[in-house]
Amino acid sequence: MSASSATPGTVYGVGVGPGAPDLLTLRAARIVETADVLAYFAKRGRRGNGRTIVEGLVRPGTEELPLLYPVTTELPVGHPDYERMILGFYEDSAAAVRRLAEAGRSVAVISEGDPFFYGSFMHLWRRLRGVVPVEVVPGVTGMSGCWTRADVPITWGDDILTVLPGTLAEEVLAARLSMTDAAVVMKLGHNLPKVRRAMIAAGLHGRAIYVERGAMAGERVMPLADKTDDDAPYFSMILVPGEGRRI
Amino acid sequence: MSASSATPGTVYGVGVGPGAPDLLTLRAARIVETADVLAYFAKRGRRGNGRTIVEGLVRPGTEELPLLYPVTTELPVGHPDYERMILGFYEDSAAAVRRLAEAGRSVAVISEGDPFFYGSFMHLWRRLRGVVPVEVVPGVTGMSGCWTRADVPITWGDDILTVLPGTLAEEVLAARLSMTDAAVVMKLGHNLPKVRRAMIAAGLHGRAIYVERGAMAGERVMPLADKTDDDAPYFSMILVPGEGRRI
Repeated sequence: MSASSATPGTVYGVGVGPGAPDLLTLRAARIVETADVLAYFAKRGRRGNGRTIVEGLVRPGTEELPLLYPVTTELPVGHPDYERMILGFYEDSAAAVRRLAEAGRSVAVISEGDPFFYGSFMHLWRRLRGVVPVEVVPGVTGMSGCWTRADVPITWGDDILTVLPGTLAEEVLAARLSMTDAAVVMKLGHNLPKVRRAMIAAGLHGRAIYVERGAMAGERVMPLADKTDDDAPYFSMILVPGEGRRI
Repeated sequence: MSASSATPGTVYGVGVGPGAPDLLTLRAARIVETADVLAYFAKRGRRGNGRTIVEGLVRPGTEELPLLYPVTTELPVGHPDYERMILGFYEDSAAAVRRLAEAGRSVAVISEGDPFFYGSFMHLWRRLRGVVPVEVVPGVTGMSGCWTRADVPITWGDDILTVLPGTLAEEVLAARLSMTDAAVVMKLGHNLPKVRRAMIAAGLHGRAIYVERGAMAGERVMPLADKTDDDAPYFSMILVPGEGRRI
Protein backbone atom coordinates (compact mmCIF):
# COMPACT_ATOMS: atom_id res chain seq x y z
CA MET A 1 0.00 0.00 0.00
CA SER A 2 1.40 3.38 -0.86
CA ALA A 3 1.80 5.88 1.96
CA SER A 4 -0.79 8.22 0.49
CA SER A 5 -3.52 5.59 0.46
CA ALA A 6 -3.13 4.56 4.12
CA THR A 7 -5.68 5.68 6.70
CA PRO A 8 -3.89 8.66 8.27
CA GLY A 9 -2.58 8.31 11.79
CA THR A 10 -3.61 10.77 14.49
CA VAL A 11 -1.28 13.52 15.67
CA TYR A 12 -1.63 13.95 19.43
CA GLY A 13 -0.56 17.09 21.24
CA VAL A 14 0.07 15.46 24.59
CA GLY A 15 0.31 17.66 27.68
CA VAL A 16 2.78 15.96 29.99
CA GLY A 17 2.39 18.31 32.94
CA PRO A 18 4.83 20.41 34.95
CA GLY A 19 7.72 18.04 35.47
CA ALA A 20 7.10 15.04 37.72
CA PRO A 21 6.60 11.79 35.76
CA ASP A 22 3.46 10.91 37.73
CA LEU A 23 1.76 14.22 36.94
CA LEU A 24 0.86 13.04 33.44
CA THR A 25 -2.80 12.21 33.03
CA LEU A 26 -3.89 8.61 32.51
CA ARG A 27 -4.85 9.53 28.93
CA ALA A 28 -1.49 11.14 28.21
CA ALA A 29 0.37 8.14 29.61
CA ARG A 30 -1.63 5.71 27.48
CA ILE A 31 -0.95 7.72 24.31
CA VAL A 32 2.78 8.03 25.03
CA GLU A 33 2.94 4.28 25.66
CA THR A 34 1.09 3.30 22.49
CA ALA A 35 1.90 5.91 19.81
CA ASP A 36 3.95 4.73 16.84
CA VAL A 37 6.22 7.76 16.95
CA LEU A 38 7.22 10.03 19.81
CA ALA A 39 8.03 13.60 18.74
CA TYR A 40 9.44 16.21 21.11
CA PHE A 41 10.80 19.73 21.05
CA ALA A 42 14.28 20.31 22.43
CA LYS A 43 17.17 22.66 22.27
CA ARG A 44 19.99 21.32 20.09
CA GLY A 45 22.31 19.16 22.20
CA ARG A 46 19.68 18.75 24.94
CA ARG A 47 17.10 16.11 25.52
CA GLY A 48 14.33 18.53 26.47
CA ASN A 49 12.26 18.59 29.64
CA GLY A 50 9.22 17.03 27.99
CA ARG A 51 11.11 13.97 26.74
CA THR A 52 12.74 13.58 30.17
CA ILE A 53 9.33 13.60 31.90
CA VAL A 54 8.03 10.62 29.88
CA GLU A 55 11.24 8.56 29.99
CA GLY A 56 9.73 5.77 32.11
CA LEU A 57 6.78 5.29 29.76
CA VAL A 58 8.51 4.90 26.39
CA ARG A 59 8.54 1.37 24.96
CA PRO A 60 12.03 0.23 23.97
CA GLY A 61 12.44 0.58 20.22
CA THR A 62 9.83 3.32 19.81
CA GLU A 63 10.65 5.57 16.87
CA GLU A 64 11.49 9.10 17.98
CA LEU A 65 11.40 12.40 16.14
CA PRO A 66 13.38 15.13 17.91
CA LEU A 67 12.30 18.60 16.79
CA LEU A 68 15.36 20.71 17.52
CA TYR A 69 14.94 24.48 17.83
CA PRO A 70 17.49 26.16 15.54
CA VAL A 71 17.63 29.09 17.98
CA THR A 72 16.20 29.74 21.46
CA THR A 73 17.50 32.69 23.44
CA GLU A 74 20.63 33.50 21.37
CA LEU A 75 18.66 35.99 19.28
CA PRO A 76 15.87 38.29 20.52
CA VAL A 77 12.29 37.62 19.44
CA GLY A 78 11.59 40.08 16.61
CA HIS A 79 15.11 39.86 15.14
CA PRO A 80 14.68 39.10 11.40
CA ASP A 81 17.01 36.09 11.57
CA TYR A 82 15.10 34.70 14.55
CA GLU A 83 11.77 35.09 12.77
CA ARG A 84 13.08 33.44 9.61
CA MET A 85 14.75 30.53 11.38
CA ILE A 86 11.87 29.77 13.71
CA LEU A 87 9.32 30.00 10.89
CA GLY A 88 11.31 27.50 8.82
CA PHE A 89 11.63 25.28 11.87
CA TYR A 90 7.88 25.08 12.48
CA GLU A 91 7.19 24.56 8.76
CA ASP A 92 9.70 21.72 8.58
CA SER A 93 8.49 20.18 11.85
CA ALA A 94 4.85 20.24 10.74
CA ALA A 95 5.83 18.69 7.40
CA ALA A 96 7.78 15.90 9.10
CA VAL A 97 4.88 15.08 11.45
CA ARG A 98 2.40 15.30 8.58
CA ARG A 99 4.40 12.82 6.49
CA LEU A 100 4.34 10.29 9.34
CA ALA A 101 0.59 10.71 9.90
CA GLU A 102 -0.13 10.43 6.18
CA ALA A 103 1.83 7.18 6.16
CA GLY A 104 -0.65 5.84 8.72
CA ARG A 105 1.43 6.29 11.85
CA SER A 106 0.19 7.85 15.08
CA VAL A 107 2.47 10.57 16.43
CA ALA A 108 2.53 11.77 20.05
CA VAL A 109 4.00 15.26 20.24
CA ILE A 110 5.19 15.83 23.80
CA SER A 111 4.16 19.22 25.22
CA GLU A 112 5.28 20.40 28.64
CA GLY A 113 2.39 21.65 30.75
CA ASP A 114 -0.80 22.12 28.74
CA PRO A 115 -0.48 22.19 24.92
CA PHE A 116 -2.92 25.10 24.40
CA PHE A 117 -1.37 27.34 27.08
CA TYR A 118 1.68 29.02 25.47
CA GLY A 119 2.66 25.65 23.96
CA SER A 120 4.96 25.09 20.99
CA PHE A 121 2.54 22.43 19.81
CA MET A 122 0.10 25.19 18.82
CA HIS A 123 2.37 26.05 15.88
CA LEU A 124 2.00 22.47 14.60
CA TRP A 125 -1.73 22.33 15.43
CA ARG A 126 -2.31 25.45 13.32
CA ARG A 127 -0.61 23.83 10.31
CA LEU A 128 -2.02 20.31 10.65
CA ARG A 129 -5.65 20.61 11.74
CA GLY A 130 -7.99 19.83 8.88
CA VAL A 131 -5.09 18.12 7.10
CA VAL A 132 -4.60 15.05 9.28
CA PRO A 133 -6.51 14.02 12.46
CA VAL A 134 -5.25 16.10 15.40
CA GLU A 135 -6.20 15.53 19.04
CA VAL A 136 -5.09 17.55 22.05
CA VAL A 137 -4.73 16.11 25.56
CA PRO A 138 -4.81 18.83 28.23
CA GLY A 139 -2.19 18.70 30.96
CA VAL A 140 -1.39 20.15 34.37
CA THR A 141 0.17 23.54 33.63
CA GLY A 142 3.64 24.54 34.78
CA MET A 143 2.04 27.26 36.90
CA SER A 144 -0.19 24.74 38.73
CA GLY A 145 2.94 22.70 39.41
CA CYS A 146 4.69 25.79 40.78
CA TRP A 147 1.95 27.02 43.11
CA THR A 148 1.50 23.48 44.42
CA ARG A 149 5.23 23.17 45.14
CA ALA A 150 5.22 26.64 46.74
CA ASP A 151 2.28 25.40 48.87
CA VAL A 152 0.11 28.45 48.21
CA PRO A 153 -3.42 28.57 46.85
CA ILE A 154 -3.30 31.06 43.97
CA THR A 155 -6.93 32.30 43.91
CA TRP A 156 -9.58 32.58 46.62
CA GLY A 157 -13.22 33.57 46.25
CA ASP A 158 -13.58 36.28 43.61
CA ASP A 159 -9.86 36.88 43.03
CA ILE A 160 -8.82 37.99 39.54
CA LEU A 161 -5.78 36.11 38.22
CA THR A 162 -3.53 37.71 35.61
CA VAL A 163 -0.96 35.66 33.73
CA LEU A 164 1.82 37.80 32.29
CA PRO A 165 4.78 36.81 30.12
CA GLY A 166 7.95 38.33 31.59
CA THR A 167 8.84 39.45 28.08
CA LEU A 168 6.38 42.39 28.31
CA ALA A 169 7.61 45.96 28.82
CA GLU A 170 8.26 47.03 32.41
CA GLU A 171 5.50 49.66 32.44
CA VAL A 172 2.97 47.18 31.06
CA LEU A 173 3.94 44.64 33.70
CA ALA A 174 3.72 47.22 36.50
CA ALA A 175 0.33 48.52 35.31
CA ARG A 176 -1.23 45.07 35.01
CA LEU A 177 0.25 43.87 38.29
CA SER A 178 -1.17 46.88 40.11
CA MET A 179 -4.71 45.98 38.95
CA THR A 180 -4.88 42.28 39.79
CA ASP A 181 -5.52 40.22 42.92
CA ALA A 182 -3.26 37.34 41.96
CA ALA A 183 -0.57 37.02 39.32
CA VAL A 184 1.73 34.60 37.59
CA VAL A 185 4.70 35.94 35.64
CA MET A 186 6.03 33.31 33.24
CA LYS A 187 9.06 33.18 30.92
CA LEU A 188 11.31 34.81 33.49
CA GLY A 189 14.93 34.08 32.47
CA HIS A 190 16.84 37.29 31.77
CA ASN A 191 13.65 39.30 32.36
CA LEU A 192 13.96 38.86 36.14
CA PRO A 193 15.46 42.32 36.98
CA LYS A 194 12.73 44.05 34.94
CA VAL A 195 9.96 41.94 36.49
CA ARG A 196 11.34 42.62 39.98
CA ARG A 197 11.21 46.38 39.35
CA ALA A 198 7.62 46.04 38.12
CA MET A 199 6.70 44.05 41.24
CA ILE A 200 8.17 46.80 43.44
CA ALA A 201 6.34 49.50 41.46
CA ALA A 202 3.05 47.61 41.88
CA GLY A 203 3.61 47.12 45.61
CA LEU A 204 3.65 43.34 45.28
CA HIS A 205 7.32 42.58 45.84
CA GLY A 206 6.77 41.66 49.50
CA ARG A 207 4.26 38.91 48.79
CA ALA A 208 5.77 37.53 45.57
CA ILE A 209 7.27 34.04 45.47
CA TYR A 210 10.05 32.95 43.13
CA VAL A 211 9.87 29.36 41.85
CA GLU A 212 12.67 27.86 39.78
CA ARG A 213 12.12 24.57 37.94
CA GLY A 214 8.94 23.81 39.95
CA ALA A 215 8.17 20.08 40.18
CA MET A 216 11.43 19.27 38.33
CA ALA A 217 14.89 18.21 39.45
CA GLY A 218 16.76 21.18 40.92
CA GLU A 219 13.63 22.92 42.19
CA ARG A 220 13.99 26.09 44.29
CA VAL A 221 11.19 28.04 45.99
CA MET A 222 11.75 31.27 47.93
CA PRO A 223 10.26 34.69 48.64
CA LEU A 224 11.20 36.99 45.74
CA ALA A 225 12.73 39.30 48.35
CA ASP A 226 15.29 36.56 49.12
CA LYS A 227 16.21 36.11 45.43
CA THR A 228 18.85 38.83 45.31
CA ASP A 229 20.80 37.73 42.23
CA ASP A 230 19.52 38.15 38.67
CA ASP A 231 20.21 34.65 37.44
CA ALA A 232 16.95 32.90 36.55
CA PRO A 233 16.39 30.06 34.06
CA TYR A 234 13.61 30.24 31.48
CA PHE A 235 11.74 27.60 33.52
CA SER A 236 11.18 29.88 36.45
CA MET A 237 8.22 32.02 37.38
CA ILE A 238 6.97 34.47 39.98
CA LEU A 239 3.70 33.90 41.80
CA VAL A 240 1.64 36.50 43.62
CA PRO A 241 -0.99 34.56 45.59
CA GLY A 242 -4.42 36.15 45.87
CA GLU A 243 -5.77 37.27 49.23
CA GLY A 244 -9.49 36.95 48.50
CA ARG A 245 -12.33 35.70 50.63
CA ARG A 246 -11.31 33.06 53.14
CA ILE A 247 -14.24 31.42 54.80
CA MET B 1 -3.66 1.83 70.43
CA SER B 2 -5.69 4.96 71.15
CA ALA B 3 -6.53 7.21 68.25
CA SER B 4 -4.44 10.06 69.59
CA SER B 5 -1.24 8.02 69.76
CA ALA B 6 -1.38 6.74 66.16
CA THR B 7 0.92 8.14 63.51
CA PRO B 8 -1.37 10.62 61.76
CA GLY B 9 -2.56 9.80 58.28
CA THR B 10 -2.00 12.22 55.42
CA VAL B 11 -4.79 14.42 54.08
CA TYR B 12 -4.51 14.67 50.30
CA GLY B 13 -6.13 17.43 48.30
CA VAL B 14 -6.44 15.50 45.06
CA GLY B 15 -7.04 17.42 41.85
CA VAL B 16 -9.15 15.13 39.67
CA GLY B 17 -9.20 17.31 36.58
CA PRO B 18 -11.95 18.82 34.44
CA GLY B 19 -14.36 15.91 34.09
CA ALA B 20 -13.18 12.95 32.04
CA PRO B 21 -12.09 9.98 34.20
CA ASP B 22 -8.84 9.56 32.26
CA LEU B 23 -7.79 13.17 32.83
CA LEU B 24 -6.71 12.41 36.39
CA THR B 25 -2.96 12.32 36.84
CA LEU B 26 -1.22 9.03 37.57
CA ARG B 27 -0.48 10.33 41.08
CA ALA B 28 -4.08 11.33 41.72
CA ALA B 29 -5.34 7.95 40.51
CA ARG B 30 -2.92 6.10 42.79
CA ILE B 31 -4.00 8.13 45.83
CA VAL B 32 -7.71 7.68 45.11
CA GLU B 33 -7.14 3.93 44.72
CA THR B 34 -5.18 3.53 47.95
CA ALA B 35 -6.48 6.11 50.45
CA ASP B 36 -8.29 4.75 53.51
CA VAL B 37 -11.09 7.30 53.21
CA LEU B 38 -12.47 9.17 50.23
CA ALA B 39 -13.95 12.58 51.07
CA TYR B 40 -15.79 14.73 48.57
CA PHE B 41 -17.79 17.94 48.42
CA ALA B 42 -21.29 17.76 47.01
CA LYS B 43 -24.58 19.54 47.03
CA ARG B 44 -27.12 17.85 49.30
CA GLY B 45 -28.98 15.16 47.35
CA ARG B 46 -26.31 15.07 44.63
CA ARG B 47 -23.26 12.92 44.21
CA GLY B 48 -21.00 15.75 43.08
CA ASN B 49 -18.96 15.99 39.89
CA GLY B 50 -15.70 15.12 41.63
CA ARG B 51 -16.99 11.86 43.07
CA THR B 52 -18.50 10.95 39.70
CA ILE B 53 -15.15 11.49 37.95
CA VAL B 54 -13.32 8.95 40.15
CA GLU B 55 -16.10 6.32 40.18
CA GLY B 56 -14.08 3.74 38.23
CA LEU B 57 -11.10 3.97 40.59
CA VAL B 58 -12.75 3.48 43.98
CA ARG B 59 -12.12 0.10 45.65
CA PRO B 60 -15.35 -1.59 46.72
CA GLY B 61 -15.85 -1.09 50.45
CA THR B 62 -13.79 2.11 50.67
CA GLU B 63 -15.03 4.35 53.47
CA GLU B 64 -16.51 7.57 52.15
CA LEU B 65 -17.05 10.94 53.77
CA PRO B 66 -19.49 13.13 51.84
CA LEU B 67 -19.08 16.83 52.73
CA LEU B 68 -22.49 18.28 51.89
CA TYR B 69 -22.77 22.03 51.33
CA PRO B 70 -25.60 23.37 53.52
CA VAL B 71 -26.23 26.05 50.91
CA THR B 72 -24.94 26.73 47.39
CA THR B 73 -26.74 29.27 45.24
CA GLU B 74 -29.99 29.60 47.25
CA LEU B 75 -28.53 32.56 49.16
CA PRO B 76 -26.21 35.26 47.78
CA VAL B 77 -22.57 35.32 48.87
CA GLY B 78 -22.34 38.01 51.53
CA HIS B 79 -25.74 37.27 53.04
CA PRO B 80 -25.21 36.82 56.82
CA ASP B 81 -26.95 33.44 56.84
CA TYR B 82 -24.80 32.23 53.95
CA GLU B 83 -21.62 33.33 55.69
CA ARG B 84 -22.60 31.68 58.95
CA MET B 85 -23.73 28.40 57.39
CA ILE B 86 -20.74 28.05 55.08
CA LEU B 87 -18.29 28.92 57.87
CA GLY B 88 -19.79 26.24 60.10
CA PHE B 89 -19.69 23.80 57.20
CA TYR B 90 -15.96 24.27 56.59
CA GLU B 91 -15.22 24.13 60.33
CA ASP B 92 -17.15 20.88 60.71
CA SER B 93 -15.66 19.39 57.53
CA ALA B 94 -12.11 20.20 58.63
CA ALA B 95 -12.79 18.71 62.06
CA ALA B 96 -14.17 15.49 60.55
CA VAL B 97 -11.18 15.08 58.24
CA ARG B 98 -8.80 15.93 61.07
CA ARG B 99 -10.29 13.25 63.34
CA LEU B 100 -9.76 10.62 60.64
CA ALA B 101 -6.15 11.71 60.03
CA GLU B 102 -5.39 11.79 63.75
CA ALA B 103 -6.73 8.23 64.00
CA GLY B 104 -4.03 7.23 61.51
CA ARG B 105 -6.14 7.08 58.37
CA SER B 106 -5.20 8.63 55.04
CA VAL B 107 -7.93 10.80 53.53
CA ALA B 108 -8.18 11.72 49.85
CA VAL B 109 -10.28 14.86 49.45
CA ILE B 110 -11.53 14.98 45.86
CA SER B 111 -11.13 18.40 44.23
CA GLU B 112 -12.44 19.12 40.75
CA GLY B 113 -9.83 20.75 38.55
CA ASP B 114 -6.78 21.94 40.50
CA PRO B 115 -7.15 22.19 44.30
CA PHE B 116 -5.27 25.52 44.63
CA PHE B 117 -7.21 27.26 41.82
CA TYR B 118 -10.53 28.44 43.34
CA GLY B 119 -10.85 25.05 45.07
CA SER B 120 -13.06 24.28 48.07
CA PHE B 121 -10.19 22.19 49.41
CA MET B 122 -8.30 25.41 50.20
CA HIS B 123 -10.69 26.01 53.10
CA LEU B 124 -9.68 22.65 54.60
CA TRP B 125 -5.99 23.15 53.76
CA ARG B 126 -6.00 26.45 55.67
CA ARG B 127 -7.40 24.75 58.78
CA LEU B 128 -5.35 21.54 58.66
CA ARG B 129 -1.82 22.44 57.54
CA GLY B 130 0.59 22.28 60.42
CA VAL B 131 -1.94 20.18 62.34
CA VAL B 132 -1.84 16.94 60.34
CA PRO B 133 0.22 16.08 57.23
CA VAL B 134 -1.37 17.70 54.17
CA GLU B 135 -0.32 17.10 50.56
CA VAL B 136 -1.76 18.68 47.44
CA VAL B 137 -1.82 16.98 44.03
CA PRO B 138 -2.23 19.48 41.18
CA GLY B 139 -4.77 18.70 38.50
CA VAL B 140 -5.80 19.75 35.01
CA THR B 141 -7.99 22.83 35.54
CA GLY B 142 -11.56 23.08 34.34
CA MET B 143 -10.49 25.93 32.05
CA SER B 144 -7.81 23.74 30.36
CA GLY B 145 -10.50 21.13 29.84
CA CYS B 146 -12.78 23.75 28.29
CA TRP B 147 -10.31 25.33 25.86
CA THR B 148 -9.19 21.85 24.79
CA ARG B 149 -12.80 20.79 24.10
CA ALA B 150 -13.42 24.10 22.29
CA ASP B 151 -10.30 23.29 20.22
CA VAL B 152 -8.74 26.73 20.68
CA PRO B 153 -5.31 27.61 22.00
CA ILE B 154 -5.90 30.20 24.72
CA THR B 155 -2.57 32.09 24.69
CA TRP B 156 0.00 32.70 21.94
CA GLY B 157 3.40 34.38 22.23
CA ASP B 158 3.22 37.26 24.70
CA ASP B 159 -0.55 37.20 25.26
CA ILE B 160 -1.80 38.30 28.66
CA LEU B 161 -4.44 35.98 30.12
CA THR B 162 -6.96 37.30 32.65
CA VAL B 163 -9.13 34.93 34.67
CA LEU B 164 -12.26 36.60 35.99
CA PRO B 165 -14.99 35.22 38.25
CA GLY B 166 -18.38 36.02 36.70
CA THR B 167 -19.49 37.18 40.15
CA LEU B 168 -17.62 40.50 39.71
CA ALA B 169 -19.48 43.73 39.00
CA GLU B 170 -20.31 44.44 35.34
CA GLU B 171 -18.09 47.53 35.13
CA VAL B 172 -15.14 45.65 36.65
CA LEU B 173 -15.61 42.82 34.17
CA ALA B 174 -15.86 45.21 31.22
CA ALA B 175 -12.77 47.17 32.30
CA ARG B 176 -10.60 44.12 32.80
CA LEU B 177 -11.81 42.46 29.61
CA SER B 178 -10.96 45.56 27.60
CA MET B 179 -7.34 45.40 28.78
CA THR B 180 -6.47 41.77 28.18
CA ASP B 181 -5.44 39.66 25.19
CA ALA B 182 -7.13 36.46 26.33
CA ALA B 183 -9.71 35.83 29.01
CA VAL B 184 -11.54 33.13 30.90
CA VAL B 185 -14.72 34.02 32.78
CA MET B 186 -15.54 31.34 35.36
CA LYS B 187 -18.51 30.80 37.68
CA LEU B 188 -21.00 31.82 35.05
CA GLY B 189 -24.43 30.50 36.16
CA HIS B 190 -26.92 33.32 36.65
CA ASN B 191 -24.15 35.86 35.92
CA LEU B 192 -24.37 35.14 32.18
CA PRO B 193 -26.47 38.19 31.12
CA LYS B 194 -24.12 40.53 33.01
CA VAL B 195 -21.00 38.87 31.59
CA ARG B 196 -22.47 39.06 28.09
CA ARG B 197 -23.04 42.81 28.47
CA ALA B 198 -19.46 43.22 29.70
CA MET B 199 -18.17 41.25 26.68
CA ILE B 200 -20.11 43.52 24.34
CA ALA B 201 -18.82 46.64 26.13
CA ALA B 202 -15.24 45.37 25.81
CA GLY B 203 -15.66 44.56 22.12
CA LEU B 204 -15.00 40.86 22.69
CA HIS B 205 -18.48 39.40 22.20
CA GLY B 206 -17.75 38.37 18.59
CA ARG B 207 -14.79 36.18 19.47
CA ALA B 208 -16.00 34.76 22.77
CA ILE B 209 -16.83 31.06 23.12
CA TYR B 210 -19.37 29.63 25.53
CA VAL B 211 -18.53 26.22 27.04
CA GLU B 212 -21.01 24.36 29.22
CA ARG B 213 -19.87 21.35 31.25
CA GLY B 214 -16.62 21.08 29.27
CA ALA B 215 -15.13 17.56 29.25
CA MET B 216 -18.20 16.27 31.18
CA ALA B 217 -21.40 14.51 30.15
CA GLY B 218 -23.78 16.99 28.51
CA GLU B 219 -21.01 19.19 27.11
CA ARG B 220 -21.95 22.10 24.84
CA VAL B 221 -19.56 24.42 22.99
CA MET B 222 -20.70 27.35 20.86
CA PRO B 223 -19.89 30.95 19.93
CA LEU B 224 -21.24 33.19 22.69
CA ALA B 225 -23.16 35.01 19.94
CA ASP B 226 -25.15 31.81 19.38
CA LYS B 227 -26.00 31.43 23.07
CA THR B 228 -29.09 33.61 23.04
CA ASP B 229 -30.83 32.37 26.20
CA ASP B 230 -29.67 33.24 29.71
CA ASP B 231 -29.71 29.76 31.18
CA ALA B 232 -26.17 28.71 32.15
CA PRO B 233 -25.12 26.19 34.81
CA TYR B 234 -22.41 27.05 37.35
CA PHE B 235 -20.09 24.68 35.49
CA SER B 236 -19.95 26.81 32.40
CA MET B 237 -17.44 29.42 31.32
CA ILE B 238 -16.65 31.87 28.57
CA LEU B 239 -13.32 31.81 26.76
CA VAL B 240 -11.77 34.63 24.77
CA PRO B 241 -8.82 33.10 22.90
CA GLY B 242 -5.73 35.27 22.50
CA GLU B 243 -4.59 36.40 19.08
CA GLY B 244 -0.89 36.84 19.80
CA ARG B 245 2.16 36.01 17.73
CA ARG B 246 1.69 33.08 15.41
CA ILE B 247 4.88 31.90 13.80
